[in-house]
Amino acid sequence: MSLGKSVPRIDAYEKVTGRAKYTDDLVERHALIGKILHATIAHGLVKRMDTTEAAKIPGVVHILTCFDVPDIPFPTAGHPWSTDPAHQDPADRKLLNRRVRLYGDDIAAVVAENEVAAVQALRAIKVDYETYPILLTPEEAMREGAPLIHDQCPRNILKHTTIEDGDFEAAIQEPGLLHFEETYETPIVQHCHIEPVISFAYMENGRIVVVSSTQIPHIVRRIVAQALGLPWGKVRIIKPFVGGGFGNKQDALYEPLNAYLSLCLGGPMVKLELTREEVFFATRVRHGMQIRLSSYIRPQGRLVARQYRAYSNQGAYGSHGHSIAAKGTNVFRQLYQDEKARKAEIFTVYTNTATAGAMRGYGTPQTVFAIESHMEDMARALNLDPIEFRFMNLMPQGFTDPFSKNVNYFDTFHQCVEQGKAYIHWEEKRQAYQHETGPVRRGVGMALFWYNTGVWPISIEVSSCRMVLNQDGSVQIQLGETEIGQGADTIFAQMTSETLGVPFEQVHVISTQDTDVTPFGTGAYGSRQSYVGGMAVQKTALLLKEKILRLAETYTGMQASALDMRDGIIVLKSLNPQALMSLGELATEALYSPVHAEHLTAETTLQAKSNAYSFGCAFAEVEVDLPLGKVRLLDMINVHDCGRLLNPQLAQAQVHGGMSMAIGYSLSEQLIYDTKTGRLLNGTFLDYKLATIMDHPHLTTAFVENYEPTGAYGSKALGEPPAVPGAPAIRNAVLHATGVAFNRIPLTPHVLVPAFKQAGLI
Amino acid sequence: MSLGKSVPRIDAYEKVTGRAKYTDDLVERHALIGKILHATIAHGLVKRMDTTEAAKIPGVVHILTCFDVPDIPFPTAGHPWSTDPAHQDPADRKLLNRRVRLYGDDIAAVVAENEVAAVQALRAIKVDYETYPILLTPEEAMREGAPLIHDQCPRNILKHTTIEDGDFEAAIQEPGLLHFEETYETPIVQHCHIEPVISFAYMENGRIVVVSSTQIPHIVRRIVAQALGLPWGKVRIIKPFVGGGFGNKQDALYEPLNAYLSLCLGGPMVKLELTREEVFFATRVRHGMQIRLSSYIRPQGRLVARQYRAYSNQGAYGSHGHSIAAKGTNVFRQLYQDEKARKAEIFTVYTNTATAGAMRGYGTPQTVFAIESHMEDMARALNLDPIEFRFMNLMPQGFTDPFSKNVNYFDTFHQCVEQGKAYIHWEEKRQAYQHETGPVRRGVGMALFWYNTGVWPISIEVSSCRMVLNQDGSVQIQLGETEIGQGADTIFAQMTSETLGVPFEQVHVISTQDTDVTPFGTGAYGSRQSYVGGMAVQKTALLLKEKILRLAETYTGMQASALDMRDGIIVLKSLNPQALMSLGELATEALYSPVHAEHLTAETTLQAKSNAYSFGCAFAEVEVDLPLGKVRLLDMINVHDCGRLLNPQLAQAQVHGGMSMAIGYSLSEQLIYDTKTGRLLNGTFLDYKLATIMDHPHLTTAFVENYEPTGAYGSKALGEPPAVPGAPAIRNAVLHATGVAFNRIPLTPHVLVPAFKQAGLI
Repeated sequence: MSLGKSVPRIDAYEKVTGRAKYTDDLVERHALIGKILHATIAHGLVKRMDTTEAAKIPGVVHILTCFDVPDIPFPTAGHPWSTDPAHQDPADRKLLNRRVRLYGDDIAAVVAENEVAAVQALRAIKVDYETYPILLTPEEAMREGAPLIHDQCPRNILKHTTIEDGDFEAAIQEPGLLHFEETYETPIVQHCHIEPVISFAYMENGRIVVVSSTQIPHIVRRIVAQALGLPWGKVRIIKPFVGGGFGNKQDALYEPLNAYLSLCLGGPMVKLELTREEVFFATRVRHGMQIRLSSYIRPQGRLVARQYRAYSNQGAYGSHGHSIAAKGTNVFRQLYQDEKARKAEIFTVYTNTATAGAMRGYGTPQTVFAIESHMEDMARALNLDPIEFRFMNLMPQGFTDPFSKNVNYFDTFHQCVEQGKAYIHWEEKRQAYQHETGPVRRGVGMALFWYNTGVWPISIEVSSCRMVLNQDGSVQIQLGETEIGQGADTIFAQMTSETLGVPFEQVHVISTQDTDVTPFGTGAYGSRQSYVGGMAVQKTALLLKEKILRLAETYTGMQASALDMRDGIIVLKSLNPQALMSLGELATEALYSPVHAEHLTAETTLQAKSNAYSFGCAFAEVEVDLPLGKVRLLDMINVHDCGRLLNPQLAQAQVHGGMSMAIGYSLSEQLIYDTKTGRLLNGTFLDYKLATIMDHPHLTTAFVENYEPTGAYGSKALGEPPAVPGAPAIRNAVLHATGVAFNRIPLTPHVLVPAFKQAGLI
Repeated sequence: MSLGKSVPRIDAYEKVTGRAKYTDDLVERHALIGKILHATIAHGLVKRMDTTEAAKIPGVVHILTCFDVPDIPFPTAGHPWSTDPAHQDPADRKLLNRRVRLYGDDIAAVVAENEVAAVQALRAIKVDYETYPILLTPEEAMREGAPLIHDQCPRNILKHTTIEDGDFEAAIQEPGLLHFEETYETPIVQHCHIEPVISFAYMENGRIVVVSSTQIPHIVRRIVAQALGLPWGKVRIIKPFVGGGFGNKQDALYEPLNAYLSLCLGGPMVKLELTREEVFFATRVRHGMQIRLSSYIRPQGRLVARQYRAYSNQGAYGSHGHSIAAKGTNVFRQLYQDEKARKAEIFTVYTNTATAGAMRGYGTPQTVFAIESHMEDMARALNLDPIEFRFMNLMPQGFTDPFSKNVNYFDTFHQCVEQGKAYIHWEEKRQAYQHETGPVRRGVGMALFWYNTGVWPISIEVSSCRMVLNQDGSVQIQLGETEIGQGADTIFAQMTSETLGVPFEQVHVISTQDTDVTPFGTGAYGSRQSYVGGMAVQKTALLLKEKILRLAETYTGMQASALDMRDGIIVLKSLNPQALMSLGELATEALYSPVHAEHLTAETTLQAKSNAYSFGCAFAEVEVDLPLGKVRLLDMINVHDCGRLLNPQLAQAQVHGGMSMAIGYSLSEQLIYDTKTGRLLNGTFLDYKLATIMDHPHLTTAFVENYEPTGAYGSKALGEPPAVPGAPAIRNAVLHATGVAFNRIPLTPHVLVPAFKQAGLI
């Protein structure tokens, strides 16, 4: 059995040799090239556009402007559809927008025979704008009298919610409570997947086909149809190998426009590939948030009541909108349990910055940064051990969330923290670095994290799967859940092997989703793949196995109930299972039987109505160079309970990636906008300081394997959470080293130096 | 409902605009090019081969010779597999053959970066041969002392069978019987599909993928695996649009070699496209046959006993082998019923000509030419009306074949013949042309045909099908039965629409078969597609409908038994069916239900254990220019009972194609071999006189629609039979015009002029 073992990725050879086919590898030689004209103002209106000169450029085939597109506002978020309008995403943009809402908004598109002609045409289009005041922050956008970015949203608030557990006002009346209040800020960052946003579209038998680097082919199908006003079945989406998405490709980004460009021309192949610069300013980003935490606490350290107020910068369009701030709020409500009350008020606010969408962690990196910084600050003020202080208030073992029905079954937090402490030599270094002096000082810090698995009960969780048996006993498996680089296909093959009882090497995963034939599944997001997809694989494998064993009755003369499958062999169950026939023999006999021929396949839809808590922590050790304003990360460990490890090597790779993202998030990454023009100033890999291997210490991963009882194979959220605790752990280590509490990230010299000066350290 | 109507082909737009993707359209820009070195002797042995100079040519990547290939003999015929070795096809060739059995045999292959380098390398390979005597006809090959082409076949006889119904020797003792004996000969011809034989292969995750222009993807998968000694599941075959096959692509032709060339290099994409010349000499041809008919008959015209002796020229390799001569024998045994006895003896004989395989009609064009010529000759000798004479001896209405259980349910032959007679003005022209004089003479002739549908009970008949419901109520359908230009996909869409109750426009047929995901079906041959495939479509559509209506109980509150589907609407059955909800609404509710989400799909395997008789006739009118030795076809009608017409326009197109092939078969087409070298002399479109539109009169089609009770939609064999009766009808018209009975086709000037001279006509 391969499950639980570090078997190599099934696509490793293809990817290492460059043979794996990504979207661009599949574009035909003579495909037309689409290019987008982006607005050069951040807020306003296109008054008129002159395409006369552009149309004269040889090779230009078609120019589509914001005056020509269908008058259909559509949503872009990669959520499963809901037939309940209240659960549908904001439909607030068109294929091209006359009303400009960010610097770089899409206002026209050119299709040409080659890229040079297309780019020349973009330059030759003349645009007259009317300009409005630019709103770059929620604060500016919510200000009385600010222009409305979307008419239907007063004060530019996309959504505003308040949740109160207990009676907050009454709770804070308790005498003797200490009050701490701080505001924390997180930056706008970008996913920076290796493969840019790319798709190509063409028509086939009167239908539109889009081949796209997406995490969510079945959802993109729905959105393209909505955006173009077509019946959903008239659209077909094909997903080849994908070079990373991290949530950016959990939106329908340019597939609708790409489809329409082909449609306008009667269906030739049109390729639409974004440059890296366009990916930065015109796709999605992580919401920048301002989070105010107000805590009432007894001097001994017990939290009595807290208030959480968050302002989430949505940028120009709705995308995933308020659900991201809402997910962050769940962390606030669940990770620490106040004795009496808790109150959260959150605002998701349109601004003239890049549209914020899903990104690894989905709101929790922001909230966890605020909460875990705040906990550290309070512990320090109360002179409590920061870990003991956390455990005094932490969600206890046995805790059940009344909404999701999630249960904290195990003493996971203690198990994780013990590993982290031991690795980083916590006690010893907390002591040793306590009174650092000199220009270079060291410190250690930590943070906890919480994450759930999949999106039930907020949205439906559905995954369908089909298995096809070959004549040699090998199996193909298809499901809507997507391989986007994370290793999902390998895990699905391991699961199939496990449940069906066939060798791992004999499971062939169809990595390409094609909405015409791939069973419906919503795709890669919410750390749901091995949890929800795993249940679908198990259900389907059990059905196929049942069919096989029922047929085996005919060939072996034994009752199905007495039979089992092991390593591709049908065996008689007993202490020493006796081999009766190979699955290959059975499949061949079944397929070519003159009496009863049957192609053995199985297909099921799995609906998950559970969720699972994933927990863990990060510990970091830093060295801070005070005069240079430079934080050097010396060591870092992430300890994670993601349930049973299905493939330790792949799990480690996921954690490494998440830790790397957290390092950039805490130390260097942020999108910076010119406050005068609203233009993104650093949207290139030269100027945007993505964390690289040069910024990383050895990344250490550790796991606690508490078998998750609600899942099919004991696993739970692994993909996103490792991106969550790194930033506050590093921030808290800097606090330990320097005594300076930073309330915003990234911790660049621009932030550090003034603060150190103010603190009299330099 | 669209079934029975001439709805346009679903792929018409794609094909007319050139947008449909054929195999060559899918080859990557940087694919390596494979080319084959063909032997320049017709019979012998490769003693040694020197590839030194070839390997030095820049761009040459790999040279594979007949000394390097796996020692695995494999079969190539596109028959369903049988686990019974007695029903398996001859495995008599390797990927490349050291033992040369035809001029052009495959002895080496080159893979290069471009075609020029590949062709240069072929020219630079030096070969030493040992040569053996060349055997071009069964007569030569069966001669005592002839060298054996395959060691295991004495006298070069691949197979020899004798079947006797009744006691032939006793029957012919009846006093007063007249005896007629004649030998008829048919030529070797080629299919001449527009798209040449082409494939490309590459490896993916350790498996081999071949994209090929084939009629039989699932069978090719099996054969590639057999030829390379791989587990069958390690091979994946993908079939794009196909530009005709006519049986040639019912063999695994070069897919095994193509797969091996990629495998040898570790899996890069290698394309192997044959030139038209290679298609002529190196793929498959229709068996040339010599058929001796010996008939014993009462003077009034009743057949008492007949003997049939056929020599079928198999060419160099086994391919479909004896089954083609055997199918012809079925015509002999069934079309006319002798009163007492019938005896058939057939030989399939290896020679050093092109390998004969399946071609439209599968043995019956040859046999029907012989039988219908012979019937005409006997009628003339007995001074009987040729049609009345035929009906005196024809398989009667109600006839049941004891082997296939086929029943001749209707008085089809009379219905067909009456239409043909009326169209051609039979009585009037038989009379008018009876005593033609002068150098240009006219005549009319006719012939009957018989065909069955699919291959049961000789082989299994299996077809699996899967249907997928979309959110808008439209449906995808996948099946293993292939669109190869004949219109199968359109028919499948019509059937699905009919049974499921959804509009035709909402059925999307997945035209590309991919053995990894396409339900198992054996493909396009035996005129089985709409008969066997149709049953699979019906079975699957009924299952999907049952699932839909069962679910509709929940949404409509009505019992499933009270519900039906009409035009995509779920209705309450009644005199005026009442619309309850659309299928789209139901599908959407089902997929996104928070209570019970389900992706509605259905998949079944259908095993057909019936067959169906298809009958008809052709009538032809000719004008013969005696001094020129030229036959001009003036008019021709084909009348066909193929059961219910599913799409009259497509049916007509099938018949037109078949009639065209018959015209070439009777008047101009034949492969001619140089008797000294065994080299094919006319294997180009310049020299091989394919019948073109210039040789065609207006082709008239007529149908008799006797609803076939054994099929799902009342249809039966349509694809192949129209190619059958044309040649004898034309030959009999020439006999009528000139009084000269030709016993061989094609009726070229080389045949006509000497015969007319001998008859004193010129």
